Amino acid sequence: MQKIGVNTASRPSSVFCGGGAAEEAARFLAGKDVFLLTDNNVYSLYKELIEEKFGGARVFAVPAGERHKNRHTLFQILDGMLEAKLNRNSWLAALGGGVIGDMGGLAAALYMRGIRAVQIPTTLLAQVDSSVGGKTAIDYRGVKNVIGAFYQPEYVFCDPLFLRTLPRRELRCGLGEIVKTCALDQAILEKTEAMAGRLFGLAFQEEITADCVRFKARIVEEDECERSGRRKCLNMGHTTGHALELSYGRRSHGEYVLIGMAFEIAIALEEGILSAEYAARLRALIGKVIGKTPRFAGIEEAALAALYDKKNSGKGEISLIVPEAPGRYRELVLPIEKYVRYLSRFNGGIA
Amino acid sequence: MQKIGVNTASRPSSVFCGGGAAEEAARFLAGKDVFLLTDNNVYSLYKELIEEKFGGARVFAVPAGERHKNRHTLFQILDGMLEAKLNRNSWLAALGGGVIGDMGGLAAALYMRGIRAVQIPTTLLAQVDSSVGGKTAIDYRGVKNVIGAFYQPEYVFCDPLFLRTLPRRELRCGLGEIVKTCALDQAILEKTEAMAGRLFGLAFQEEITADCVRFKARIVEEDECERSGRRKCLNMGHTTGHALELSYGRRSHGEYVLIGMAFEIAIALEEGILSAEYAARLRALIGKVIGKTPRFAGIEEAALAALYDKKNSGKGEISLIVPEAPGRYRELVLPIEKYVRYLSRFNGGIA
Repeated sequence: MQKIGVNTASRPSSVFCGGGAAEEAARFLAGKDVFLLTDNNVYSLYKELIEEKFGGARVFAVPAGERHKNRHTLFQILDGMLEAKLNRNSWLAALGGGVIGDMGGLAAALYMRGIRAVQIPTTLLAQVDSSVGGKTAIDYRGVKNVIGAFYQPEYVFCDPLFLRTLPRRELRCGLGEIVKTCALDQAILEKTEAMAGRLFGLAFQEEITADCVRFKARIVEEDECERSGRRKCLNMGHTTGHALELSYGRRSHGEYVLIGMAFEIAIALEEGILSAEYAARLRALIGKVIGKTPRFAGIEEAALAALYDKKNSGKGEISLIVPEAPGRYRELVLPIEKYVRYLSRFNGGIA
Repeated sequence: MQKIGVNTASRPSSVFCGGGAAEEAARFLAGKDVFLLTDNNVYSLYKELIEEKFGGARVFAVPAGERHKNRHTLFQILDGMLEAKLNRNSWLAALGGGVIGDMGGLAAALYMRGIRAVQIPTTLLAQVDSSVGGKTAIDYRGVKNVIGAFYQPEYVFCDPLFLRTLPRRELRCGLGEIVKTCALDQAILEKTEAMAGRLFGLAFQEEITADCVRFKARIVEEDECERSGRRKCLNMGHTTGHALELSYGRRSHGEYVLIGMAFEIAIALEEGILSAEYAARLRALIGKVIGKTPRFAGIEEAALAALYDKKNSGKGEISLIVPEAPGRYRELVLPIEKYVRYLSRFNGGIA
């Protein structure tokens, strides 16, 4: 087990990665006033573990799934916290995937103007990415994560024991963020390429989780609230990915990130930003996770929804973070029309 | 006009106090993408001023009054921000009293995980107290301020021009927080006593606003998120005041703070914490603002509602901040039953 510090201005937090992390969480929370938020899926899979390790906590389970990451569920959680009579010394523990982490973190941020939170991520996506860095949110009126807060958990406990039960779709989702990180960090790229035949195996996932967390921690420390631009790199693939996810929404978030990356790499290649050889390396990894990128019907209209994507300024331009070379990336700003034409041109024809 | 810095860990902010502050706000916001939140009362009073000084802003007015400080209005505001297509470089300006400041601050904190905010407080209460320090909130399910965030505005502009139109009830409300500050700070106590015949006059109010802001800024800098206990002193009078406000709710917030203070001073006197002479000095100021404290029917039941007050731990005890001597105060923890008996005993019989 490794302990990784995330020293942000607002609040230092620590991430425990590896076997034993859940046990560490149990020890830490024992004797505290804990509201344990989870979802029905996770609860039915881990009822015994929860009772054994977190027996003292009030367990609150909400319906599972991204479509419940909304205002209604957020206020259900806050109602539960009020009914449990939590006070400012209570703790919220979010045990689940990215949706539970996002909503639990936001509920902790808002209840009495903030109670302390720990994250116990159970999906690969949440372990390598969303549980670290303090981004919390709900979707609202069709806009992803438009209501939320930057609110650091005190601790994050990433235990590979939870990864054993993940369906392949969930693994693809987490692998999406891992491959994104490959396009940002050369060491992670090379390690992933070296283990490219075993991406769906626990050994790779456990190994890469700590690396991804450490990489993300450094970025978040430099730009906690996504103000300086430093943190923006973590959105690689997300601009296009989010737009397609909103419009088509059948695959997992991480798959849309990879599809978004595939489009954005094709655009960057066309714009002369990266070499064909590097594009091929990244596409090879994307292919290992999702196979061929699909063809989307009506992609131009779908992409126009991206105009409303919160990362863009609404000035008729779209901002992408694109890879340049191993460990290097840059911002690419395109007029919306040009961007939409690119999507149409590469639709179904990449990787 | 004075400029007072509030250097919190999360974000430094500056408060401009005095004539010309509204003009300063206008200069600062000119050319920015601004969503100006106000309420119908303030808008009808200051429509021309708003058009003249903040003509470039999108004005969004919500119904006036404490009872609208709720989830419904918060989401109305967020809807308005979405419809105005605000992005992360937009600004929210909250022009109004404490309710607008609290809700506007929270909407700014939540929209896209935080856009920048300025406060332009128009009431005495908001100028001397609530606009400074970053506390934002809504009431929910009968619990005051239970959903909110600590979120510092970039700038606060306290202009006495807005105080001219305030009804006497609103002035009493602000004077409540000023008299509370008297019980915390000796210099403010002495200045207020020296001008005790003119508390309802603009000269005193303009003079004391900067002092109160400076005092509060120092406290908030030491304990931004009310964690160390330092910031707790600002809640003097509020525990009892909030309980009575929730149960009886006809007077203004500041009046309930003063009534709460009157009760808590009587309790502290009985507990031997402050001298009869100092109690009399504080009561004299309270009397100047609200006259005699009223008798409340059924005060014991009302006070039990205080059990649910978020500042208390729910362990059958209530925590009060009480004055000891000029410039000195301490925490007093009482069993709920004893506290309720005190309230019953002093009901209608103080000051």
